[in-house]
Amino acid sequence: MQNIQSYVNQHKERFLNELIELLKIPSISADSAYKNDVLKTADEIKISLEKAGCNHVEICKTDGYPIVYGEKIIDKNLPTILVYGHYDVQPPDPLNLWNSPPFEPVIKNTELHPEGAIFARGACDDKGQMYMHVKALEFMTSTNQLPCNVKFMIEGEEEVGSVNLSKFVKTNQEKLKNDVILISDTGMISKDTPSITTGLRGLSYVEVEVTGPNRDLHSGLYGGAVANPINILSKMIASLHDENNHITIPGFYDKVEELSKAEREQMAKAPFSLENYKKALDIEAVYGEEGYTTNERNSIRPTLDVNGIWGGYTGEGAKTVIASKAYAKISMRLVPHQDWEEITQLFKKHFESIAPKGARVKVTPHHGGQGYVTPIDSIGYKAASKAYQDSFGKEPIPQRSGGSIPIVALFEQELKSKTILMGFGLDSDAIHSPNEHFGVWNYLKGIETIPLFYKYFTELSK
Amino acid sequence: MQNIQSYVNQHKERFLNELIELLKIPSISADSAYKNDVLKTADEIKISLEKAGCNHVEICKTDGYPIVYGEKIIDKNLPTILVYGHYDVQPPDPLNLWNSPPFEPVIKNTELHPEGAIFARGACDDKGQMYMHVKALEFMTSTNQLPCNVKFMIEGEEEVGSVNLSKFVKTNQEKLKNDVILISDTGMISKDTPSITTGLRGLSYVEVEVTGPNRDLHSGLYGGAVANPINILSKMIASLHDENNHITIPGFYDKVEELSKAEREQMAKAPFSLENYKKALDIEAVYGEEGYTTNERNSIRPTLDVNGIWGGYTGEGAKTVIASKAYAKISMRLVPHQDWEEITQLFKKHFESIAPKGARVKVTPHHGGQGYVTPIDSIGYKAASKAYQDSFGKEPIPQRSGGSIPIVALFEQELKSKTILMGFGLDSDAIHSPNEHFGVWNYLKGIETIPLFYKYFTELSK
Repeated sequence: MQNIQSYVNQHKERFLNELIELLKIPSISADSAYKNDVLKTADEIKISLEKAGCNHVEICKTDGYPIVYGEKIIDKNLPTILVYGHYDVQPPDPLNLWNSPPFEPVIKNTELHPEGAIFARGACDDKGQMYMHVKALEFMTSTNQLPCNVKFMIEGEEEVGSVNLSKFVKTNQEKLKNDVILISDTGMISKDTPSITTGLRGLSYVEVEVTGPNRDLHSGLYGGAVANPINILSKMIASLHDENNHITIPGFYDKVEELSKAEREQMAKAPFSLENYKKALDIEAVYGEEGYTTNERNSIRPTLDVNGIWGGYTGEGAKTVIASKAYAKISMRLVPHQDWEEITQLFKKHFESIAPKGARVKVTPHHGGQGYVTPIDSIGYKAASKAYQDSFGKEPIPQRSGGSIPIVALFEQELKSKTILMGFGLDSDAIHSPNEHFGVWNYLKGIETIPLFYKYFTELSK
Repeated sequence: MQNIQSYVNQHKERFLNELIELLKIPSISADSAYKNDVLKTADEIKISLEKAGCNHVEICKTDGYPIVYGEKIIDKNLPTILVYGHYDVQPPDPLNLWNSPPFEPVIKNTELHPEGAIFARGACDDKGQMYMHVKALEFMTSTNQLPCNVKFMIEGEEEVGSVNLSKFVKTNQEKLKNDVILISDTGMISKDTPSITTGLRGLSYVEVEVTGPNRDLHSGLYGGAVANPINILSKMIASLHDENNHITIPGFYDKVEELSKAEREQMAKAPFSLENYKKALDIEAVYGEEGYTTNERNSIRPTLDVNGIWGGYTGEGAKTVIASKAYAKISMRLVPHQDWEEITQLFKKHFESIAPKGARVKVTPHHGGQGYVTPIDSIGYKAASKAYQDSFGKEPIPQRSGGSIPIVALFEQELKSKTILMGFGLDSDAIHSPNEHFGVWNYLKGIETIPLFYKYFTELSK
């Protein structure tokens, strides 16, 4: 392919400014207060796809936030790549930990990013990585080098579980027909160690409510005589792990595939420094399931974490109260073969069963999705591998990620095509955290690598 | 004493309206946002004491909120009664559970209070009960029946641990000199079973902070690989009680006095219906320390309760995050002979010792106070007993309360006088809870009973 680097260099200021404008819109799908901003973002995506050269773009209504669909079909006989991404973002709180406002993007240099990084909620996850594909298309169309057909499906509910996407996919199979699905919503090992994500964890997200007395009580008059919902909830949460940090929910591990010694040895070859890991998080020690390494714990093993907890008096000063209710948001990361709906039911049944007399428990399933493993001998994987070799000068490493993109399993089931996860983010990008950022170098490298995937995928498909 | 009932009947409308005006001021000492309201309340108390007949009233500055002091000295040779109360109130949240705004008092009839009850934060604790003493003084002065000297000490920091009271008492021993201290900040068993509180529990209130990673993390990429502060905090809280709900802090029970079989049998005679108790709280079963009854659990036994917990994402929807920090407010109710500062240190030492590697724990002592037991053969107790017999027509029952009024022990130590706890509230008044209220009947009955205490205490002191 001709002049990718020179084109990127020539237009990089504009590429950055266009992304910055997109990042200014607080498209927080989890909080209905931002509804208009989410919708506005969809409109902006539509416009950017038209500018990039799509010959048909539409905003598709759903029962929730719309899905932006765009396509450029140049020849029915050529392969078709379906690009998936999302334009919604995580809530930014805790706001006080941001060094600059989450929706006022700034470019700052960091040790890892001497060329600068864009700091803003969504900079990496996923506005930045999604927009790389829009700019890659712009390059290919404006230089007449688009080698195949392309379709875009950019949704606005990924951060709340893609609740309406499956219906859309099921009812639009013809429109979404493709030969490979391309997603940039993951990371790579490091700037000089490109990697392709070959595995994702599934997810089950629930909210629990524990009710004790029918009203808040004075802790002096009732303390010690009634079940305190916060103490009870703490006890129930604690009981979900045993002394080896195995999860105690009956049946939870039944379908978990144990990797072979060989596979685990292969995994262990990925460059990883436990010291740097601990240093980066400022922790004295790692913590997790007995018998597994840190990289195994957060990729090939299922986990259970409390994502939020609240109850009683949390304001300034002291209040001697026994709360009537206590709440927690709990998520489980699942591995391939664990069915998220089955796990959700196992959790519900178990959690309700361990509630003591004197307390009532309500478990509300939130959302979830299946795990996924992609083969590394497919045309798609080979094309991605060659693309990275051209742009990075070295072969990418296949890597299992701990994260979840629930819809990947859905795509394979409904659209009968494989997904390639070309991620250009880094662990240190702090996605879902305060001060999320995306390296300028990574952003431009992505724009440079993507067209090469189109080239090799088309060639290998012949 | 002459015409108490007729005087009360004649003025009850005004007595109610004056209290309602006082209840409209949100004097929340725990929240600095209400500073001006707390100060305004002190001014109102000063005015009401002057109107009631005090010949000297002053607002005494402290390092925190002021203490209102008032006195009427009629004869140095007569005994002196020191009335203690507080004009600050608990925070009203959760606001959404109030049927009427906490600082817009309304009188509503209830099953227990066919004559109506005043619904407002502080209606019972302690504005209502404190104001009974102001109106009792008004009666005695306006009918020339004050039989002895009286002093008032009304503070504004009781709900935040009376942090500046001890200094005030220590440095004003001459001014506060008295023969008995009279407090209405407790309850009675029921409207037809008057009781005098003879025991109070001590209190140790702490705040804990658990820190894991130095920033919020994506639960997919890090879940299962690092210590999650919320899971850790839950586990640590759960470990503070064993399977019999005994508290596991080493040394916690060392100084706890075990009551004799005879004393416990005496206690068990107080009218109590477990069925009504469970019905009133809408709980299927009570919950607490093995081997003790409900009334023992909340009076003669020390307890540990979480009063508030928070961490991670608690907003609408879902956020797959591992929080950097989790927090809890924890209070321990103590029994006589347990020293609150010693217990606080035992808690701190133990809680810090059970933190796993990978998490850091900070324990911040908040406030506390000693427990107290008062003899029932003192002149003060006898005078109170006779007063109740006159106004209620039956002898009051001595009762141990689970609540804490930390300054009672301090008074005995510094002022060398006994405290009489004449409470007119009911357990169902929901103090510290939404919809706190105080029965109109109880309020007026208190105003009617207090002057009788003055009469009998003066007579018995001769």
